[in-house]
Amino acid sequence: VSFVEAIARKRDGKKLGPEEIAQFVNGASHGSVPPEQLAAMLMAICIRGMDADETADLTREMLASGDAWRLSEEVPEAVDKHSTGGVGDTVSLVFAPLMAALGQPVAMMAGRGLGHSQGTLDKLEAIPGFRVHWDRPGMLGLLERCGVAVVAQTEDIAPADRTLYALRDVTGTVPSLPLIVGSIMSKKLALGAGTLVLDVKCGSGAFRKTLREAAELATALRAVARSAGVACEALITEMDQPLGPALGNACEVRAALEVLAGGGSKALREITLRLAEEALVLRGRDRQSSRTDLVAALDDGSALQAWCTFVESHGGDPGPEMLVQPGRVLEVAAECGGFLARVDGEALGRAAVVVGAGRRWRDDPIDHAAGVEVDVRLGQAVRRGQTLARILVGRRSLDEEKLKARVAGAFSIRDEQPDVPPLVYGTPEDLVD
Amino acid sequence: VSFVEAIARKRDGKKLGPEEIAQFVNGASHGSVPPEQLAAMLMAICIRGMDADETADLTREMLASGDAWRLSEEVPEAVDKHSTGGVGDTVSLVFAPLMAALGQPVAMMAGRGLGHSQGTLDKLEAIPGFRVHWDRPGMLGLLERCGVAVVAQTEDIAPADRTLYALRDVTGTVPSLPLIVGSIMSKKLALGAGTLVLDVKCGSGAFRKTLREAAELATALRAVARSAGVACEALITEMDQPLGPALGNACEVRAALEVLAGGGSKALREITLRLAEEALVLRGRDRQSSRTDLVAALDDGSALQAWCTFVESHGGDPGPEMLVQPGRVLEVAAECGGFLARVDGEALGRAAVVVGAGRRWRDDPIDHAAGVEVDVRLGQAVRRGQTLARILVGRRSLDEEKLKARVAGAFSIRDEQPDVPPLVYGTPEDLVD
Repeated sequence: VSFVEAIARKRDGKKLGPEEIAQFVNGASHGSVPPEQLAAMLMAICIRGMDADETADLTREMLASGDAWRLSEEVPEAVDKHSTGGVGDTVSLVFAPLMAALGQPVAMMAGRGLGHSQGTLDKLEAIPGFRVHWDRPGMLGLLERCGVAVVAQTEDIAPADRTLYALRDVTGTVPSLPLIVGSIMSKKLALGAGTLVLDVKCGSGAFRKTLREAAELATALRAVARSAGVACEALITEMDQPLGPALGNACEVRAALEVLAGGGSKALREITLRLAEEALVLRGRDRQSSRTDLVAALDDGSALQAWCTFVESHGGDPGPEMLVQPGRVLEVAAECGGFLARVDGEALGRAAVVVGAGRRWRDDPIDHAAGVEVDVRLGQAVRRGQTLARILVGRRSLDEEKLKARVAGAFSIRDEQPDVPPLVYGTPEDLVD
Repeated sequence: VSFVEAIARKRDGKKLGPEEIAQFVNGASHGSVPPEQLAAMLMAICIRGMDADETADLTREMLASGDAWRLSEEVPEAVDKHSTGGVGDTVSLVFAPLMAALGQPVAMMAGRGLGHSQGTLDKLEAIPGFRVHWDRPGMLGLLERCGVAVVAQTEDIAPADRTLYALRDVTGTVPSLPLIVGSIMSKKLALGAGTLVLDVKCGSGAFRKTLREAAELATALRAVARSAGVACEALITEMDQPLGPALGNACEVRAALEVLAGGGSKALREITLRLAEEALVLRGRDRQSSRTDLVAALDDGSALQAWCTFVESHGGDPGPEMLVQPGRVLEVAAECGGFLARVDGEALGRAAVVVGAGRRWRDDPIDHAAGVEVDVRLGQAVRRGQTLARILVGRRSLDEEKLKARVAGAFSIRDEQPDVPPLVYGTPEDLVD
């Protein structure tokens, strides 16, 4: 069957069969279907959608386009965690050692930052000596030694996703739900952890702005995971402001260390606890005692100890004093008093990129010292002159006044106390009420 | 503005502005927008549609991508005629000299055949010496000498259409109404005749299967022509069977000659008369006397005389004995008696291609002697053993039995007399009743 006929079927809103989806995905990974035909199919999928069967078929074919590490075959108890992407999202750096402190192995394949959000790999590489490239035996060794492995996704994982993602980026088809699900879940299933907890961001700084959209994504991701035999839960969490107090690399590691030491950002601590709790419940533990154990691990130093073991086993130096410091810190102060009514997380994320913490293009270098620290949260009362944020300037020379104005512009202060969204909205089922 | 944003607007069903449409069409003709982005936009347009403004903007930009011959500036009275494409559609070969016989100049840019329908240029080239390549002064000279010019579309006419058509062909976006309208009308407006009559085919052998679809296309084409200041009418005509008695090249010229000599196919004669009548009414003539004059020209030899002048002025030899004859003729007979209930025009068109009358690929050679002649029309009573069709075999060696079975399979004979569609459905307004 010619691929044009498959395109025409989706164009007309019909359901694609497994063979047509295989033709599409194989065409992308082997180059046997030209980019213009892939692009037309992507747009047809984006407008017409895909049902649960088609989405599962798409994910399975994207997974099959590359290597499968089948982690659950050797470490069936290992847990994976994924976030749909947000600003100041330092959760993985806390989650992994925290779970390890409770004897719960964690394995993740992480990516690099692009655009306004930073990537876990870049953050870990701010730690001197930290090694992110491991093969499958290397990853299994890490899990055996310290119960945590956070490694770079290899080129051989879901190659179809690279081709399709690059095309989606230039064809206006990034927001398609089934394409997002296929992209995320093919990579999760390629690692193959038996348990997966999903952090689906919702709000002005996330891809999904409304609760309905976020719940739709959470439900679709979870359905594909479960249909592949993975124990999976999804929490929808707030992204109307940066989650943690830091946007960058070394500064996010410091923010994680503070939470691991029992202090630090309350929001970062709470979301991590909620995700960890869900993961432990999926692993068959009692919810109440899981919570107690997790809180204890943060407060008694065992999570911090697990961090040191984690970093050392990955080749890194866990001492916080080894993290590169910014050359200069620019304070951004409130120009008036009132309540913090809005924080533009994307604008702050872009400012962090400008100062060197992220990439505008795939091969841009990263300045690990650079970043933005945020001192305030939505609804908080602020005085005139109070520090809202600090710009951490590294090696890059910049127009400092322009940058300060840019960061200041991300905060809106009003006289009335605004409604503040909850930190965690819950599972898709919690939102039905 | 990035082109991705324009794609995303159409993806979301929004209206494109003139600048976005210009970016799209210029991107296609200059190669400044890559094929995958053009393909995504084509699919978004195909699914979301375009309103009358967008369709007019698209046509204008496609026209502006190449040369405009502005025919109406020098020969304001010239008439153009266009058919949306069908099988056995020999109308142009009769229409042009018939109108010239009445002193009404006709100018057409014609194309070659591809797929199951034959092209006017290929048919004319079956006439020894007939020259189809003329520049603008050459065309004006032809009009002055004989009142008829039928020339090949040049490479410089609407180059954006070539790029977009090639992409539509592989991306399942051929059936899009605004894309069809832009493609057809950009080329008609590039010639620039002041009067245009459109033959919109409707039925099982046409692109538009239903009256609603055909009326929609006729209305959209006419609206763009009229908005560009062209006097235009559209007739919707039946394409549930081949229009004329011949599918091929030399055989279609012979079929035209028979009608021009006052005999021949009644259907071909009648549709040509109706289109010619509409064109003369658009030119301000009285409908009744136009009809009388047209019939007289066919019956008194003046149309045939105009044919000879037309062919000679284009360098050809008008003698019918100069047309190449088939090497062999294979008769296809009815296997049973009854009424002709269905004729698969597309299947007959493809059989004509197999025998050498058309092209499967753009550079395939044409055998002018080859073709298929059809003796019967829908609803007609046939006896067992009566000839339904004749396969005209030229140079190509073929599996004759297979070919005969293929042609025989295009005819369905039933016991009950079927409903027969009318030859001409009328203008879009006639269909409202």
